[in-house]
Amino acid sequence: MPGEFSAALAAFTPPDDHAAAAAAEHLDRLTKPPGSLGRIEALAVQLAAIAGTSPPPVPAPAAVAVFAADHGVVAEGVTPWPQEVTAQMVANFCAGGAAINVLARQTGASVVVVDVGVAGDVPPAPGLVRARIAPGTANLATGPAMTVAQAAAALDVGAATAATLVAGGARCLVTGDMGIGNTTPSAAVIAAFTGRAARDVTGRGTGIDDARLALKTGVVERAVARARGRSPMEVLAEVGGFEIVAIAGFIVGGAAARVPVIVDGVIAAAGLLGAAALAPGVLPFVIAGHRSAEPGASVALAHLGLEPLLDLGMRLGEGTGGCLAVPVVQAAARVLGEMATFDSAGVTEK
Amino acid sequence: MPGEFSAALAAFTPPDDHAAAAAAEHLDRLTKPPGSLGRIEALAVQLAAIAGTSPPPVPAPAAVAVFAADHGVVAEGVTPWPQEVTAQMVANFCAGGAAINVLARQTGASVVVVDVGVAGDVPPAPGLVRARIAPGTANLATGPAMTVAQAAAALDVGAATAATLVAGGARCLVTGDMGIGNTTPSAAVIAAFTGRAARDVTGRGTGIDDARLALKTGVVERAVARARGRSPMEVLAEVGGFEIVAIAGFIVGGAAARVPVIVDGVIAAAGLLGAAALAPGVLPFVIAGHRSAEPGASVALAHLGLEPLLDLGMRLGEGTGGCLAVPVVQAAARVLGEMATFDSAGVTEK
Repeated sequence: MPGEFSAALAAFTPPDDHAAAAAAEHLDRLTKPPGSLGRIEALAVQLAAIAGTSPPPVPAPAAVAVFAADHGVVAEGVTPWPQEVTAQMVANFCAGGAAINVLARQTGASVVVVDVGVAGDVPPAPGLVRARIAPGTANLATGPAMTVAQAAAALDVGAATAATLVAGGARCLVTGDMGIGNTTPSAAVIAAFTGRAARDVTGRGTGIDDARLALKTGVVERAVARARGRSPMEVLAEVGGFEIVAIAGFIVGGAAARVPVIVDGVIAAAGLLGAAALAPGVLPFVIAGHRSAEPGASVALAHLGLEPLLDLGMRLGEGTGGCLAVPVVQAAARVLGEMATFDSAGVTEK
Repeated sequence: MPGEFSAALAAFTPPDDHAAAAAAEHLDRLTKPPGSLGRIEALAVQLAAIAGTSPPPVPAPAAVAVFAADHGVVAEGVTPWPQEVTAQMVANFCAGGAAINVLARQTGASVVVVDVGVAGDVPPAPGLVRARIAPGTANLATGPAMTVAQAAAALDVGAATAATLVAGGARCLVTGDMGIGNTTPSAAVIAAFTGRAARDVTGRGTGIDDARLALKTGVVERAVARARGRSPMEVLAEVGGFEIVAIAGFIVGGAAARVPVIVDGVIAAAGLLGAAALAPGVLPFVIAGHRSAEPGASVALAHLGLEPLLDLGMRLGEGTGGCLAVPVVQAAARVLGEMATFDSAGVTEK
């Protein structure tokens, strides 16, 4: 799928300040004290800017793209989970049994699973997109995780996924991920783009002990030393993962299609740093859905000036935190479009 | 409606520890790292305990009860909004144009409006329950807001509303409120039940300036001095409001009917303190939906050991914050009921 990322960059237009201003003005005519809906009001303004009209359409239906890939760095022992779990979980997603499937049903979202670099065998299934660049990355502890050409291909997979989902009717995108070991490249990407130390951004992932955390932090620290100061594409190739880079492309693709993109946890935060480095204009199209318990997520979001909508102590990935934010985002658009004004409802203003 | 509150107290049974234990055990068999769904997992256990079975049924549909009442204390100048707005907003709720109507539509919840003590004229409307105890409370700055008999009647209105909604099919209740000036009695109730100073629990409500905040804090301080150390019913009568007391009854009624009760903002937090004082066993049935920007809400919830699910900077009331928490609560039940296990999905454990 060559060129989809470049096409998204070329198609990109900034958010609409006039629609945002109209939304802000309308919010103060609605039957509530000014500002009393807190972040819902800021979201409503953002959605108007994204859609280019006030009130904005309700961003429904939502679609979650779960980008799945494997990581050569698992050879270092950074995780106790066997690599085969990535392919097994892809099958679980396709069968509808994973947490993201359940939460997507709750919120009326669809789920598409994109094999962008799983190592194991993944049989064809409905809802599965086969776009494998390689059977897992190389071990980032000992050399580049991927080539720059592979990173470019992963960006294209992400951008193409966004374009396909929006063409199919999705009006809100949610990033998702699966990949045993993927908090390690995420930490490295976050350290490289933010300049923070490995120990500030490396966490326990699925729940590792102190010894393994020390080992993982060391792996991140040494890998980041090779990546610092290099171009965004070189950083992503040196210490990234196929799903992380695909998420970067997905975010840019969603912004180019002018739909809100809800980013999930720490893997998405790493992808978002990549997207913002390659195309800084995407940030107004992004909504941070949930504050992952992984420390790197908070570091990345703070670096970008984003505050997550939800903080439920989740650290699963898959898009689960982002998915739970969907109703909040949709509610914000509805407030602007459906609430009565003081005039229309005959309510006296103070 | 005499006796509904007493009936609820008599019907009350504690949550089911066996169902909770079964839920906790099942959560660790699901295809996710243990604990990785954070507060969703704790919610799932709570819902199993409430329902008395694991997995619990999805608590849907939800119903929001907006208890509306006026407050004699507005004569003190504690709010810049005219009292007539309470009745006007009741009409707005019945016409479907208020924020709570919009958010309830987003979440598939119904809205019932209960006039438990509005001062102005409120014409009949679909979805309106007329249960007015008096046309507003007396001025709590100069004497008791209501008699103990009136407080008992408000408890009955709340308990009856919960029973009626559950009999009508609701499986999740959300507290809502409307009443110009009602952050003043809420602050007083919270100060009286927690022992905290008026200045710690009195906030800007809909957005008052420093001078009015000082006046309001003084009113709360003097009123609370009369209420401290008295029985829960006497506290509620001395410094409460009809909607605050009705919410206390509603919470107990919901707990007696074994459905989760999502409490909204600061007015609901005051009602919850009353409910917990009258019937401490209700707390396991309660979910704090949203952290109101009003300081008294956080004081009350901390006093009860509750942590709100959402924190979106909202301070509107009506049940809006609680309503936004409904999908999160429903998602928790679905996780327990619908996710695959490691065995069923053929996923390897670490």
